[in-house]
Amino acid sequence: MTRPGRCVIVTAGPMGEYGPLRGLLRPGDSFYCADGGVRHLRGLGAEPSLLIGDFDSAHELPQGVETLRFPSEKDETDTMLAAMEGLSRGFREFLLLGGLRGRLDHTLANLGVLLYLTRHGARVRMADADNEALCVENGELRVPARKGWYISAFPIGGDAHGVTERGMKYSLDEATLRAEFPNGVSNEFLGGDAIIRVERGALLIVLSRKETGPLAG
Amino acid sequence: MTRPGRCVIVTAGPMGEYGPLRGLLRPGDSFYCADGGVRHLRGLGAEPSLLIGDFDSAHELPQGVETLRFPSEKDETDTMLAAMEGLSRGFREFLLLGGLRGRLDHTLANLGVLLYLTRHGARVRMADADNEALCVENGELRVPARKGWYISAFPIGGDAHGVTERGMKYSLDEATLRAEFPNGVSNEFLGGDAIIRVERGALLIVLSRKETGPLAG
Repeated sequence: MTRPGRCVIVTAGPMGEYGPLRGLLRPGDSFYCADGGVRHLRGLGAEPSLLIGDFDSAHELPQGVETLRFPSEKDETDTMLAAMEGLSRGFREFLLLGGLRGRLDHTLANLGVLLYLTRHGARVRMADADNEALCVENGELRVPARKGWYISAFPIGGDAHGVTERGMKYSLDEATLRAEFPNGVSNEFLGGDAIIRVERGALLIVLSRKETGPLAG
Repeated sequence: MTRPGRCVIVTAGPMGEYGPLRGLLRPGDSFYCADGGVRHLRGLGAEPSLLIGDFDSAHELPQGVETLRFPSEKDETDTMLAAMEGLSRGFREFLLLGGLRGRLDHTLANLGVLLYLTRHGARVRMADADNEALCVENGELRVPARKGWYISAFPIGGDAHGVTERGMKYSLDEATLRAEFPNGVSNEFLGGDAIIRVERGALLIVLSRKETGPLAG
């Protein structure tokens, strides 16, 4: 059964300034903390609904919150466990906070979680203060223009066929995007919505802030 | 014709402390600077062989160095242009420095360049101070143990079939790795070489330093 509301997964990774991220939160969001993500709760001003992970690092855990403790030797990452739990409890809208910078193994694993959620029928958004990722498979996505941000499309899980992009400086017409030749990188909004369609395959839509300070450094 | 020696592509992105990266350099390396990568030359203690990019940012360019200037409106990223130029001049071994942290669009585009080079018969390694990426397609890779680093395998360009991993805490036996369910993440060396084989498909092998300071933060 689909559950209304949104599951916000707070990952353990760095996420930059909390200010822009607090702006993404909505009343009624349910916060699932993936292991060390608990350290971000105060900065985000968020009350957790669920703690999930192995908790083998020394974190002070909030009291009185439902906690799912897993052995540290497992196949799934803590973020994936949180996503699976959210799906199984009926959520079909997700926001993942953090996990897009820092350790490259974590970043790549987290992008896989985006695809996993998308393939399970969820709408999904992943954000830190300077980067954002969305995912679409065999469908169309409309992204409101965002001044000062680049927009890029990358195939994920294989080549993406029949890719059409509108509302951006460089258009694509039923193009094939291949992992080894990224040609949808650092495109720009024209001022209205960007529309991205993929006929066969999946795309990661990546938004990156133009001036990223330490990230650009 | 294959040219001996190694093409070191210096990307424009952040790369962390220069010290560990200088340790990767070898006498006789040819340095190709992808656009803003020139700012890293001093830190790396490297003399450039080629500058490549649109150079529309205000960088002070080294004098007397061969320079290939491209229009800023192009399909390829500067890093891709440098890789293509290196291939066409005969290099079959590449080291890419930087480009694995910072702007997510750049990171993902750079991982595509790794696959591109691999598919063109080159041996390739991409590194910053805390992350490293290698690529193997339909073949086997041997990675010397590195104390204090995790090792992970991710499919790139589609699912990876028949993946076998040895010399690591968690073994795999002819497994299929899929983008949406990363189960080869944050594995550990046992002490000797790690051996990773993929029968059909391509893998990114990602090494990440366990204590990354600001990256973990």
